[in-house]
Amino acid sequence: MIPQISTPECIVSKDERLVKQITPKTEDFSRWYVEIIQKTELADYAPMKGMMVIRPYGYAIWEHIQRLMDQRIKAAGHVNAYFPLFIPESFLQKEAEHVEGFSPQVAWVTVGGKEELEERLAVRPTSEAIIGHMYSKWIKSWRDLPVLINQWANIVRWEKVTRPFLRTTEFLWQEGHTCHETYEEAQKETLLILAMYKEFVETELAIPVLAGRKTWREKFAGAQETYAIEGLMSDGKALQMGTSHNLGQHFSKVFDIRFEDRGQKLQYVWQTSWGVSTRLVGALIMSHGDDSGLRLPPHVAPIQVVIVPISLGNWKETVIPAALAAEEILKKAGVRVYLDTREEFTPGWKFAEHEMRGVPLRIEIGPRDVKSGQAVLVRRDTMKRETLPLDALGAKVPALLEDIQASLYQEAFTFQAQNTHEARTYDEFKDILDTKRGFVKSLWCGGEACEDKIKDETMATIRLIPLEIKDKPVHGACVCCGKEAKALVYFARAY
Amino acid sequence: MIPQISTPECIVSKDERLVKQITPKTEDFSRWYVEIIQKTELADYAPMKGMMVIRPYGYAIWEHIQRLMDQRIKAAGHVNAYFPLFIPESFLQKEAEHVEGFSPQVAWVTVGGKEELEERLAVRPTSEAIIGHMYSKWIKSWRDLPVLINQWANIVRWEKVTRPFLRTTEFLWQEGHTCHETYEEAQKETLLILAMYKEFVETELAIPVLAGRKTWREKFAGAQETYAIEGLMSDGKALQMGTSHNLGQHFSKVFDIRFEDRGQKLQYVWQTSWGVSTRLVGALIMSHGDDSGLRLPPHVAPIQVVIVPISLGNWKETVIPAALAAEEILKKAGVRVYLDTREEFTPGWKFAEHEMRGVPLRIEIGPRDVKSGQAVLVRRDTMKRETLPLDALGAKVPALLEDIQASLYQEAFTFQAQNTHEARTYDEFKDILDTKRGFVKSLWCGGEACEDKIKDETMATIRLIPLEIKDKPVHGACVCCGKEAKALVYFARAY
Repeated sequence: MIPQISTPECIVSKDERLVKQITPKTEDFSRWYVEIIQKTELADYAPMKGMMVIRPYGYAIWEHIQRLMDQRIKAAGHVNAYFPLFIPESFLQKEAEHVEGFSPQVAWVTVGGKEELEERLAVRPTSEAIIGHMYSKWIKSWRDLPVLINQWANIVRWEKVTRPFLRTTEFLWQEGHTCHETYEEAQKETLLILAMYKEFVETELAIPVLAGRKTWREKFAGAQETYAIEGLMSDGKALQMGTSHNLGQHFSKVFDIRFEDRGQKLQYVWQTSWGVSTRLVGALIMSHGDDSGLRLPPHVAPIQVVIVPISLGNWKETVIPAALAAEEILKKAGVRVYLDTREEFTPGWKFAEHEMRGVPLRIEIGPRDVKSGQAVLVRRDTMKRETLPLDALGAKVPALLEDIQASLYQEAFTFQAQNTHEARTYDEFKDILDTKRGFVKSLWCGGEACEDKIKDETMATIRLIPLEIKDKPVHGACVCCGKEAKALVYFARAY
Repeated sequence: MIPQISTPECIVSKDERLVKQITPKTEDFSRWYVEIIQKTELADYAPMKGMMVIRPYGYAIWEHIQRLMDQRIKAAGHVNAYFPLFIPESFLQKEAEHVEGFSPQVAWVTVGGKEELEERLAVRPTSEAIIGHMYSKWIKSWRDLPVLINQWANIVRWEKVTRPFLRTTEFLWQEGHTCHETYEEAQKETLLILAMYKEFVETELAIPVLAGRKTWREKFAGAQETYAIEGLMSDGKALQMGTSHNLGQHFSKVFDIRFEDRGQKLQYVWQTSWGVSTRLVGALIMSHGDDSGLRLPPHVAPIQVVIVPISLGNWKETVIPAALAAEEILKKAGVRVYLDTREEFTPGWKFAEHEMRGVPLRIEIGPRDVKSGQAVLVRRDTMKRETLPLDALGAKVPALLEDIQASLYQEAFTFQAQNTHEARTYDEFKDILDTKRGFVKSLWCGGEACEDKIKDETMATIRLIPLEIKDKPVHGACVCCGKEAKALVYFARAY
């Protein structure tokens, strides 16, 4: 009776006012973004500044992301664990860059029970410090390596400017923390995870991303190198969607994580860390959403197919049995289906609501359809309608969902291609950012002065240095200073 | 190549000293308990007082608990969501009993970034207050009811005396929070969850439990009624393993959670909340463990079957292929299997290690076994050996695992039955607690004076008032004061 999938049904406000006009994307992207979140009940604002509540519909998307990512993390040999929420202040202070980067963002516990604490405890802004401490207890020999541990956890960073899912005081994420015998192994892990993130986001979220290295200025506080994947949102701004850090021996040296190597010599381990967060839900909204609301890729949609019975004539005797049969067939085919039999709403209202909520496929069944043994299918991505024999649903719908997944990816891929431009001069560069948005590929001298100047003057930052640049030296002039370039990089204004 | 199940392999210390004698249970139960946790790498002590790290082997058990519980929660119509970690102090203070019960245990965030906060934020000791606030925004009409939301989250309670898994400053749990139109519906939900918890713990953890109501003294701070399940650990002490609260209108009145009822009248909603936590891992250890270490029920064992190849003669050419074939067959049969091919350890060492780690079934394959096409199977619960044809493994092992699950339950059930006694006089009562341990069933007058006196003099508390007592009035004298009894209750010393 009750669907086993997480449906928002029991918490949907039955108030008809719910489906209101959403501010068009082109009119005000930021307003469109927050209106979608509120109206589709993905999340709500908490009473504490910068914090949000992830409502069941939003959390169900996160559960699918977790499930699909966790499978990949385990398939690559990692195991999950759980480390404490609190980190003593002295631990955070051990790595100089790390404390400088994170201490402005830390929420501090100073009182426990009725007593003032002797040492303040940070609510984890990331877990390198506490995990480093534990690893130094656990790792003795090369035989203990590699250590491949991941955790799913909540993170707190005291942010000044927040936006639901994209930047919130508290968010959910996974953080991998690995230890290796050599730099090369750690680097291999760093890039393996980067590739895994790219494949995950493209396959499951239908969002094409660039993968590459961050500049020193943009890297993680404490890392030797940071790699990231970057997507282009539909307003032309870039979004960092996952990072993978080669930590070198920065943390192993300060936390004394040493192992006896194969030649009986004591060595510091080489580490990596990497994570993706609930920010990915924000990326889904901004990549695929349109003026009618969300368009969810079927792989992570809480409801993949909604069946709306058309309440005409003796529909309860004719349409409902056919709809129930269709629901059963789709469930057996492994489809997350919701049969919307609510009587207080008209079919038209339901169409609008499920469109807004981004359900990938709608199946309409009316009295005439039952007579002719068919149903009307409407894709959310293209809004195209087709009719299909009722007895073909089990065979056709899974393939159709895959087609929707692929077409959302293709659409986003085309958008990214059309919004990636090359600029050779600084005037061209500024013109593209002002008139065309998107990624700007340009040569860069490698200097922070140019990086800073460009940021100050255009608000664009270097999103990535593509991976291949090490092998292919570039020739030409820096787009900013005109000196000899060291790399071809991707700039963009970013979230 | 890498097993998809969470195996502790990559983080097991390869140091042979790992398998040392564990202090016998009968000699020192508390020491036995913490030694098992450390030596099997379920958890480790964190550097902050009262906090622990759940290591991969322990976390893998928790993941199975989560998965099996989450299925039940969703099957009963609930959806998951995520509410903020922090709760403003003023919110906690709204419900008088609630603040009195929890404020001594709260960790307080007083500084965010560089700034002193205007209002202290509690790190959630439970989420009724913040969820109540959000529900008051979301619920308007009877059409919005019931609200059936659950969250998986971390919880912080500043405990004075801690013990890994049983009572830690931070722990993981699920907390359900529901709203209903009537008291009766809320009560139905409360008891439905209580029954679900009992069925879960008995079916998946193989631990028999009593279910019933708590006395006023033992109930949740803010609840109208608290129900709980209680298990009997193998040292004869009781452990509360899950609670389900009927909150009445205590929180809806202070958080103003009102709805327009079917007669257009404004009413306060009726609420429930309920939870189980990582404490369940502690229950597994204390219910089933023996002097050789853990005995994990197959349903939640990270590794259900370990295959140990016997390294004799040309074992690499003969035994390994047979072991790989057996591994493949068992994987196909849906068994979580680990083939232990490590060459730095002897088979005997591996037997001891996997016994200590509680792997339910060991399969030994040696050169002679390969010749005769068979394998030796050793059950962890009874240590009984049997031989089985290699080609029968796929068909027989899943059934054998179910048999181990059932026999662990049966053993615990017999233990509980043998350690549940009735006492009619206070002398009998004290004698049982001193000499026989376990549950003591006695008549009680319903007075807190007797409850307090018994606790002070014997350290025993009323664990439960059985559910059926409302229907069957009792006749007799209170075990403590001799006045007319109101209920037959279960006493025990408890964790």
